[in-house]
Amino acid sequence: MSPRPTLLLLIPVGWAGLWTPWLGKADLNVLLHGRDSYRPDAIDYVLSFRPPPGFLKTLPNLKTIFSVGAGVDAFLADPEFPSHVPLVRFVDPQLSTEMAQYVVLHTLLFHRNQQVFDAAQAQGKWAQQMLPRGTADTRIGILGLGEIGGIAGTRLRDLGFAVSGWSRTHKHVPGIKSYAGDEELGAFLGASDIAICLLPLTAGTRGILNAKTFATMPKGGYVINVARGGHLIEADLIAAIDSGHLAGATLDVFETEPLPEDNPLWRHPRIVVTPHIAAISDPRVAAQYVIDGIEGAERGERHEHTVDPGRGY
Amino acid sequence: MSPRPTLLLLIPVGWAGLWTPWLGKADLNVLLHGRDSYRPDAIDYVLSFRPPPGFLKTLPNLKTIFSVGAGVDAFLADPEFPSHVPLVRFVDPQLSTEMAQYVVLHTLLFHRNQQVFDAAQAQGKWAQQMLPRGTADTRIGILGLGEIGGIAGTRLRDLGFAVSGWSRTHKHVPGIKSYAGDEELGAFLGASDIAICLLPLTAGTRGILNAKTFATMPKGGYVINVARGGHLIEADLIAAIDSGHLAGATLDVFETEPLPEDNPLWRHPRIVVTPHIAAISDPRVAAQYVIDGIEGAERGERHEHTVDPGRGY
Repeated sequence: MSPRPTLLLLIPVGWAGLWTPWLGKADLNVLLHGRDSYRPDAIDYVLSFRPPPGFLKTLPNLKTIFSVGAGVDAFLADPEFPSHVPLVRFVDPQLSTEMAQYVVLHTLLFHRNQQVFDAAQAQGKWAQQMLPRGTADTRIGILGLGEIGGIAGTRLRDLGFAVSGWSRTHKHVPGIKSYAGDEELGAFLGASDIAICLLPLTAGTRGILNAKTFATMPKGGYVINVARGGHLIEADLIAAIDSGHLAGATLDVFETEPLPEDNPLWRHPRIVVTPHIAAISDPRVAAQYVIDGIEGAERGERHEHTVDPGRGY
Repeated sequence: MSPRPTLLLLIPVGWAGLWTPWLGKADLNVLLHGRDSYRPDAIDYVLSFRPPPGFLKTLPNLKTIFSVGAGVDAFLADPEFPSHVPLVRFVDPQLSTEMAQYVVLHTLLFHRNQQVFDAAQAQGKWAQQMLPRGTADTRIGILGLGEIGGIAGTRLRDLGFAVSGWSRTHKHVPGIKSYAGDEELGAFLGASDIAICLLPLTAGTRGILNAKTFATMPKGGYVINVARGGHLIEADLIAAIDSGHLAGATLDVFETEPLPEDNPLWRHPRIVVTPHIAAISDPRVAAQYVIDGIEGAERGERHEHTVDPGRGY
């Protein structure tokens, strides 16, 4: 029997109370960085959100690093990230479902012109009108057809939309047309009335939502970004909307978070801003995921959701 | 070969231009009430939206009456409705899908607290927060588990909600708990955090959304009515919200439409009002439905969606 493994929580100290009740159920030493003192060589596992660059390499005996979220770009952005240590993403059906809810909600808000009805209600006006564009004629393009993209795309397909997906390699999701690689990006975007970004943030996808992307999309197109702020060139988006080419956008993620008060995105009439709430990891579920992951690692198993650092997700 | 059948359009004259291009493709005499003159005994078929009471019985040779919409309460409300003539409802997968979109949109707007994020954006405030109630813990009750209710319920089930349905008789929809009849209405409502009305309007369902219904629902409940204004006692809804028992409501249909400017629903901060736009029949699709229906009737077939006047749908 090996000794009790030690798990270091490398998260904002204020969050610890959300996690420790659930992690406390397991046979673990749980330490909180910034509150507890510890010897770096005593740490077996880390659970982290956005680790300070250069920190993880100071823990010489790490067996596995767990990410609080589905995206691990903040880990891989560390130039000294200890890439010999397995890094595990948080993959949770509930998180995927809630992300799909967000995507469906904001697609429908745009598609069904709800803003117009909100404005009419504010004025007490009965303003009946048809959908601006038929559902079956509305083509949705999902950038990133992985775990979450596949679920969101399927939900939208079931609501009558024509759905395509774009990814690094071709994917097979029933009823969803698959595009892959740089050579098919233009054809994909040209057939996307609503482009939804669910990509991992990697060197290959950083800034993928830019002036050229928007020009490739059909006139009247709409953009939804629920992945990372780094995917989007914010000034290019505003220019594409203000020129009349794009109809608008919904953004949940930003280059700088919290989004600074003076950022013009807040006040753009055709941009919906939400504060990175599309899907929030549930500590109860995530704690069990980490406990299970540690048990597997102690048995020498490789975790199903171990990140490939070369690929970036 | 029988002579060309004659179809009378009994719809607002301004709508005729939406229908005649599609109906004109068929081998029919198409007449518009209020514009064309005709002999009542020459009319074989009628397409109508809200026929004036007492009018249909003046057409002695009617073979079938087609409704523009899925609901036929306006026909059956005519005390002199010629009940020996088959009445056919408009049932269209696209219409059902768009109704399901509306239900999903307004369920998610409430569930995901989007109003709070809209208000925060208006103030340029980054107001991150969790869902007020977990998705799997949110119980949705669909009143009316027919064609449209089954689709809407399935879409909500796929988005992670716990879905039940209530109908006249038990229904079998995978993953949706079925309640039926007056004796199970209380148990159904008691387990519905969000109650969605998709019922046909009949003598048995008129006023079903009333003070007693709301009191039976859990505190913090939400009501969505997309069926008919006659299902809801508007004053009871406002009272249930103002007392703090219900959290709010979304209404697409009203006792009087257009909703009068001085109706307090327009200005209630917890009620979303839309102008009967949840699903609008597409004339192109509906015209083909009528053409196919006339062809079937001429062959002596009973239409699949013939209304049972005793049942009311």
